[in-house]
Amino acid sequence: MNGYPIGLHKWDLDTPALCLDAPALEQNISRMAKYFAERPASLRPHSKTHKCPTIAWMQLRAGAIGITCAKLAEAEVMAQAGIRDILIANQIVGIRKISRLVNLAAYSEVMVAVDDPANAEDLSAAAQAKGVRLRVLLEIDVGMGRCGVAPGEEALALARRVSELPGLCLEGIMGYEGHAVMIPDFEERRRVTEEAMAKLVSVRDLLEEKGIEVKIVSGGGTGTYTITGNYPGVTEVQAGSYATMDGQYRRVGIDFAPALTVVARVISVRGDRAIIDAGLKTLTPEFGMAEVVHPEGWELTRLSEEHGFLRRKGGPELHSGDPVELIPSHGCTTINLHDEYYVVRDDVVEAVWPIAARGCIR
Amino acid sequence: MNGYPIGLHKWDLDTPALCLDAPALEQNISRMAKYFAERPASLRPHSKTHKCPTIAWMQLRAGAIGITCAKLAEAEVMAQAGIRDILIANQIVGIRKISRLVNLAAYSEVMVAVDDPANAEDLSAAAQAKGVRLRVLLEIDVGMGRCGVAPGEEALALARRVSELPGLCLEGIMGYEGHAVMIPDFEERRRVTEEAMAKLVSVRDLLEEKGIEVKIVSGGGTGTYTITGNYPGVTEVQAGSYATMDGQYRRVGIDFAPALTVVARVISVRGDRAIIDAGLKTLTPEFGMAEVVHPEGWELTRLSEEHGFLRRKGGPELHSGDPVELIPSHGCTTINLHDEYYVVRDDVVEAVWPIAARGCIR
Repeated sequence: MNGYPIGLHKWDLDTPALCLDAPALEQNISRMAKYFAERPASLRPHSKTHKCPTIAWMQLRAGAIGITCAKLAEAEVMAQAGIRDILIANQIVGIRKISRLVNLAAYSEVMVAVDDPANAEDLSAAAQAKGVRLRVLLEIDVGMGRCGVAPGEEALALARRVSELPGLCLEGIMGYEGHAVMIPDFEERRRVTEEAMAKLVSVRDLLEEKGIEVKIVSGGGTGTYTITGNYPGVTEVQAGSYATMDGQYRRVGIDFAPALTVVARVISVRGDRAIIDAGLKTLTPEFGMAEVVHPEGWELTRLSEEHGFLRRKGGPELHSGDPVELIPSHGCTTINLHDEYYVVRDDVVEAVWPIAARGCIR
Repeated sequence: MNGYPIGLHKWDLDTPALCLDAPALEQNISRMAKYFAERPASLRPHSKTHKCPTIAWMQLRAGAIGITCAKLAEAEVMAQAGIRDILIANQIVGIRKISRLVNLAAYSEVMVAVDDPANAEDLSAAAQAKGVRLRVLLEIDVGMGRCGVAPGEEALALARRVSELPGLCLEGIMGYEGHAVMIPDFEERRRVTEEAMAKLVSVRDLLEEKGIEVKIVSGGGTGTYTITGNYPGVTEVQAGSYATMDGQYRRVGIDFAPALTVVARVISVRGDRAIIDAGLKTLTPEFGMAEVVHPEGWELTRLSEEHGFLRRKGGPELHSGDPVELIPSHGCTTINLHDEYYVVRDDVVEAVWPIAARGCIR
């Protein structure tokens, strides 16, 4: 872990290094917490972005009602760190995973998404065998076209089935407007998000009309929290990226502070081209190139496996060994490439936090 | 590590799981070894792809003269596994890394690429201080436009400088024809590769004419090994992907056996669309979508962070819980997302091998 780095200036770190600016992180967590403190909806931050129990606990202590995970293995890590109220916002299928899930349910308040009656039956059987009560949310497809049942009759039929299955406790519904969170124009984003949340809340109305209690209505992301978080009927929002932030959310105008950067180093220079020691194994490319924030006047044009290609655009000369700092375009997948955060305050490393749920894909 | 999986059928693994077919791997290693056994050039397999000392040792025992690494941290892992002759085919810059490098040189025969006189001076000073002799290859830019000095006078000047620096031992030169390895048309690939190797060998000729011995001329990759491996003057080839193979090399006609797959599981189905539990944290997208090899008649159309989208193209119906097997499009970066290989023979897991150099980006 980078040889006792506490007290080093971030540019003296062995590179590439994933850095997290502590004041920016604290400010983001506090700002989002305040937003939800003033509203009926609560915050259940998605931990798939930061993958770090330390940050999850900061969010909980600031007022979050629980956390969200994408994978069971992430939930196991968070539970081991003492976190109890955990939503796994995905289907858990297969006998090995379901067995792990009900074991986790024995020592945490885990919830899981369901969109298939056969899967619900498997969960019920395992929960009964283990003697636990497993909390369940129905996943509703609110327009993204990924997982989830359709609003209306299909949702109602599944809700009825889940309600009658022993070992399961139907807590409510969830729906993710993933097709909306990145829409650049805010008014269009609002329109698509409200359409999605209308579908979600219509399912709540239908179920309650039929006598099925819906305590939780969960949705939302960093790109839509101001919309979802104000939508009548939504009880909690799963935003995750706001804590660390990344380039893609900056591009669509989300103004949380960029806490996450990669510090890399120039390893070769030819004229107006510099090569850094950060490639596809350090920065992910699916949302475009990372933004160079130091030095100014240089641009990342391409990533190969182990190298990044910088082009000079009016910046100072670079030399072999010079540090370069970049904001990743996609925090979630970039963080997943790293084993630890170098936590920095006033540019000096003050802590190293393990990214304990990195690689937790199962 | 997936709960004592030895003896399980691969489709019963907790998913997603990175699988390696042992017979295919053995066949690939043996076939490449035979190819080089019959030629003047030797094989120095690149371990940045597999990142696994177990596989590196299989390659060495089959006849490889040493291994190649991309990063110092990978070389440290390989040296800890008892491997001595290691080329780090990159520049090592920065005081912390150089200090690690000369410490590694004290218990292995590590070689490093150099393309800058100031960096060579830093390496020399550190090697002297540590009392080791550091082996060096000059990196030549053979047309890729990444790292490396230009052939001709610039190369000669750097060779002279390195030769006179205490603590350094100039062993030869290297040049990677990365701009050629993926050219789909083989004749065009041959033309570009031969042009690159002509530049590389011209540097050897120039240096030897000036009295500087060049023992090693290193280059090549899986896409070009039949060209580079036969080019007069090239002494060793750094091919790496051939052992595990991947989709991109299959697409350009490289016919090593596809040993590497990901076994995933269907978590949600709506008509002709199935969602699997493998997304961007399990499969990398920069060379396109992974190829579905089981079941036939389904296609991967899109990856989001935690999900893969399959579309039915004549295949059988899929249900929640069904296994799906895919060949990753890019082995190097996909392997880097996983902690272990599930080694399979006749579809049954026989071993779990740690991907010990995963995440070794420094």
